[in-house]
This record gives sequence, structure tokens and C-alpha cells, in this order.
Amino acid sequence: MAAEPSAQGTTPELESRLSGPVRIVGVGLLGTSIGLGLRARGIEVVLADASPTVVSISSDLGAGRPAASGDRPQLIVVAVPPDVTAEIVARELADFPDAIVTDVASVKLQILQTLRERGADISRYIGSHPMAGRERGGPLSGRADLFVGRPWVVAAHDAISYKRASAIDDLILDLGATLVEMSPEEHDRGVALISHVPQVVSSLLARRLVDAPSAAVNLAGQGVRDVTRLAASDAELWVQILGANAAPVREILAAYREDLDRFIEALGDVDAPGARRRVAEEIAGGNTGVARLPGKHGIDKRFATMIVMVDDKPGQLARLFNEIGEIGVNLEDVRLEHSPGVQVGLAEISIVPEAVERLTTELVARGWRIAG
Amino acid sequence: MAAEPSAQGTTPELESRLSGPVRIVGVGLLGTSIGLGLRARGIEVVLADASPTVVSISSDLGAGRPAASGDRPQLIVVAVPPDVTAEIVARELADFPDAIVTDVASVKLQILQTLRERGADISRYIGSHPMAGRERGGPLSGRADLFVGRPWVVAAHDAISYKRASAIDDLILDLGATLVEMSPEEHDRGVALISHVPQVVSSLLARRLVDAPSAAVNLAGQGVRDVTRLAASDAELWVQILGANAAPVREILAAYREDLDRFIEALGDVDAPGARRRVAEEIAGGNTGVARLPGKHGIDKRFATMIVMVDDKPGQLARLFNEIGEIGVNLEDVRLEHSPGVQVGLAEISIVPEAVERLTTELVARGWRIAG
Repeated sequence: MAAEPSAQGTTPELESRLSGPVRIVGVGLLGTSIGLGLRARGIEVVLADASPTVVSISSDLGAGRPAASGDRPQLIVVAVPPDVTAEIVARELADFPDAIVTDVASVKLQILQTLRERGADISRYIGSHPMAGRERGGPLSGRADLFVGRPWVVAAHDAISYKRASAIDDLILDLGATLVEMSPEEHDRGVALISHVPQVVSSLLARRLVDAPSAAVNLAGQGVRDVTRLAASDAELWVQILGANAAPVREILAAYREDLDRFIEALGDVDAPGARRRVAEEIAGGNTGVARLPGKHGIDKRFATMIVMVDDKPGQLARLFNEIGEIGVNLEDVRLEHSPGVQVGLAEISIVPEAVERLTTELVARGWRIAG
Repeated sequence: MAAEPSAQGTTPELESRLSGPVRIVGVGLLGTSIGLGLRARGIEVVLADASPTVVSISSDLGAGRPAASGDRPQLIVVAVPPDVTAEIVARELADFPDAIVTDVASVKLQILQTLRERGADISRYIGSHPMAGRERGGPLSGRADLFVGRPWVVAAHDAISYKRASAIDDLILDLGATLVEMSPEEHDRGVALISHVPQVVSSLLARRLVDAPSAAVNLAGQGVRDVTRLAASDAELWVQILGANAAPVREILAAYREDLDRFIEALGDVDAPGARRRVAEEIAGGNTGVARLPGKHGIDKRFATMIVMVDDKPGQLARLFNEIGEIGVNLEDVRLEHSPGVQVGLAEISIVPEAVERLTTELVARGWRIAG
């Protein structure tokens, strides 16, 4: 797989400052993707993992060469499960006394505290967390561009010098990610809110489906599917993440429960004075909250959407996108919606608002039916 | 807009039994879509709405003609907001003593009870609920095919004869929907679970974002966007729906809160005996629950997904779909993912599993990069 140039047009910063390889410990999805991204920039990478099989897969994919005893890494990335991250970081700091070490675990404060307690040399450690991932894990899902355009948090602390920490900044920028500096506490509260609590909320809702009558489950539409999609996540990994970030997650869940209690109370007597107003306020509060989310899959107002009806057979979607290309309009996003067995699908396409009128006219002239 | 033939290949059942028009009261999204669907089958439709403007828009769209005083409808569909549905149904039953009346409100028991209490002639009324909708309301969003392949619940009760109720069955089948018979109680419990409670859970989570630091909100990825998408729903409508279905929603929310309480308690001391196991069980329970959901956007195991890297410029996606068409593989679903400003997008395509190997080989031979 060829790598893409960084979205930010950076030249490899890291290469110029390194006299030894980057060592990656743990070569699942994240470790392999980091290796692929660095190799694409010509940086020497050595790979280590508790599983030799995983190292050889990742190496075969082009993420680097297997680590050898004579390696003198200057930068080490620990990409192992959260539960063992502190231990492996401590070991790496001890084994390679000249190297700067980072990790990519999704919780940051507990790792730093554990390293402090163990007396590890944290003047060479700075934690980080790329906000990237895929539904499938493992080295085979690795991609050189996994981090392009994604936030990558650096969890700053006072014990490491600016000069040393900037090696991690260079690594992040080289991989095309957007550098975000936060304290470990800020990071952990942030991911509790936008990742860990949504996981819990989604899982607990999906649990309600376990014993539900099939007749009810069969009425499910897109709404409940969206809310419960995260509930398919790996339970073992989430026990580790939630265990390592229990306090901030608990705090937000407690506030959520207060809202829920008020909601349940209001539903207890909807004709009581103020009850309907309270329900309305909670739903309206949700409107306000969701509008704060960035990104195109939420309610991105930068793009307009159009729905085009497409016959459900080979070549039809091709013809549509072909003609949109001929018309010269760029698709920002596309989502196909149809029910199994039904002969017509709906392609919901996102484009810049300026292009809507022209594209509508041109598509209709070419015989397409615009459904909305 | 031309109508699609019904997915179930039915011929118009309704037309053969009607000697008068179908009257639609309330011509927003659902009323207009029903009108469009019936008109496409050659059935005479007359439209009524509190707003003459809305009637003229819907009529101009082809959903039927404005109702006139001499109309003798045999079938009446009431498609008004939940809060006024019972009142309008009662009025229609009184005004048209020969007509069968249905409504399409999303809660069923309260309407039937109100009609009983008012002494309305429920031997000519049977409620129904199409599980279809769109994010945008209003007649302009109406579509003749809105109901194709979607479940449409008929809320059966004992006071109407089979013969009379079957007119509604014919209406539903003519519109291409899948007929589902349930009691009003079963329906209301079902939609509480798969529609109303997910709405509440999503809104309450989104509320947590209102006062969150921007730095945290900016870390948001697809997960939280999915869980909170419903939170953008109309507050006024939801107050009506939740108010009309308070008891079943409250019951499920109470069970949800019990799980939440246990979860919060387990997070209070994650090192206590059994705490991690309890967290794991809740997440694993979510795995089991979400696996029960039907449909392709959940975790539909009938289709395999492939991720293809696509340059973000006009014509590239067209070329991809064109070539997939040439290869002769049908796309079951497609989702494009890319970050703004980044030059490479990822097209996640769903196809039948048998086609994966061949499509991969052919696409790679044509120079595409498969990312997973």
C-alpha cells in the first residue's frame, strides 16, 4: 500500500532529528498504522510485540522490521492495551535510557501517576492519544493514513523538557494528525464525555433489547441503530478503558442520571404543572448540545444534502456518480439507504450548497429523480 | 415524481373496493406521501388541512385535490400531530358516517381510549402507524415511496369488523409497506423501546455537551455523533409523543436507570470484587442486544464490507462505482468517510460475501487501494 502525503503538507520533521530507529511496541491496529505512516516517510521503524506472529504480519505489511537486540531507538511508541501500558512504558524507559517514550492509550492520567509512583524516568515520557480507530482491530486493519486529519492529543506534564517532548509533536505532525495539547486531566475528562460515556449509554440501551419481543425489535429503524451502534464494541477493551477512567466517567454519568431522574419523574404525571415543559427543556437541551459537535456526519451546516433515487442494480450508482463527476460537482459525502429486496435505493449526497441548484437541474435533465 | 411499483408486486387492492375518494386530513410529510403513493396507483384522493397553504402545496405536488363539500370519502387517513389526533378522528367519524377512519400517529392506545370515552363510533376506526419518516418534515419532503418496504403497524381492536379493517390493510399494502398487526398496547410498548427511549437517551446525552469545554467537544468522533444524532429531533413533537406514551417509556427508562445505577456503583470502586465483571457484563449485554436489530446499518452479517481509498476530487468516486458495475458486483450499501480538507476519502462498500475476493482482485488490478 502506498502512503499518502501528509494532509498538512509537512516534510518529515522526525527524520532530520533521529539518528536511530523509532521502536513500536505493540503492533495491532494503531502500532501497525504508525509504522506504516512512518515508513512511508522513510523513517526506520523496528517492531516489537508479545506475539511474534503479529510482528511478522505487521512487518510483512511494511510497518517496519522486527526489533533486534542491537537496536538503539531514539523514540519509542507503546501501543499496547490500556491495562499493561504503564508497565510496558516503565520497562521501555528502563531498557532504553536514551530514548523518549510515548504511548497511545485512550486514558492518560492513571498511566502518568503509575509511572511516577514506580519512580520511572518521566523526564523522557509524555503520553499521547490519537483520536482515530476503526471498528476492526489488528495489524491487518492498519493504514498509513489512519491519523490524517484526526486530533492527536499530547498529554503535557511538567517533568519533561519542551525539547524532548517536541519529538512526539514531530511524530504526530509527520503522520498527518492535528496536534492537540491538553493536561492528562483535561484529556481524561474530555474523552469521558465524548467517547466513554457515549459507549456506556449506548451499551445500556442495547441491553434493553436483549429480552424484548421480536415483534418490537423488528420495528427498529435507523434511529435506534445509530444510538446502539457503539454497543457492538469489544467488552474486554472497554472494561480496561472504563476502569482506568472511572472517576470522570462516573461524574458525567451521575449528572446524566440526574437528568434522567427528572425526566422519569416528569413522565410520571405528564399533566402535572410544568411536567411537559420539563420534557421539552430536556429535548431542546439535546438540540443545543448536538449542535456543538463538529464534523460532517453530525449536523454539518457547511454542506447541503440531496436525495437521488437509484435503481438497485449493478452500474446505476456508478452512472450517478459518473454524471455528477461530469457535471463537475465534488461529493463531500454519500450514504446509500435502501431496504433489502426493494428495487429502489436512495443515495443521500452531500455537496457544497452553491452547487445544489445546478446539480439538481443537470441531474433532472439526465433523467434522475430527486427525492428531496 | 413517478411512483415505484410496490416492492411486494401487489396490484392496487384498494381501488377495486372504493366507490369514493380517500380523504387525507393533515398533509405534512406523511399525509402528502400517502397521497402521492395512492395517486400513483390511480386512486382518487382529497386533501384537507388546517392550513390552506399546505393543502395547495401538497395538491400541486400531485398528492390529490383539495377537499370539497360534496366529497363522499369511503376511507379517511388522519395524519395530524399526536396531540390533536383523537379529536380530529372523532370529528371525521361524525362528519362522514359511512367512512372507515385510520390515523398514523406514533402512539396508539391513548387515541383509542379517548375515542371510546367520547363515545365515537370505533366500529369504523382502526389506528395504524407507518414506521417511516425523514429528518425533514412538511409536504415538500413527501415521497410516493416513503413506505416501501417499511413496517406499518395496524393496531387491532375488537370493536371493528375484519371486513372493515381490511380496507386499511389494502391501503398499507398498496403503498408497498409491510403490514404488521399488533394490539395498541404491544405497539406502544414496542415503539417505546425502539423509538421513544432511544430518543430520550440520545437527547439526555447530548445535553451533557451543552456546557462542555470546546476542547473536549472538538475531540468528538463518529461514535458520539451516532449516539446523539436523534437529539436533533423536534422538541415540540417529542413532548407530544412522550406525553402520549408516558407509562411504557417510563417503565423502560426505569429499567435502564437500574442498569445505570449498577454501572455507576461499579465504577465507584473498580477494584472491588466483582466490579470489573459487572462492567464487562453490561457491555457484553449491549453486544447481545444490538445483535438482535435487523437491517443493514446495524451489524448486518449478510454483507461484507470493503474499504477502498478514493482521491477526493470530482469523478473519482464515479470511476470506482463505474468499475464495480463493470465487474458486475452490486453495491448493497456505501458510506464515504473523509475529513474536510484531506485529499483522500475512504469508501466503505457493502457487498455479498461471495463477491469480496473477486472484487478485491479486480479492483487492485485496476489500481485501487483496498484499505480493509
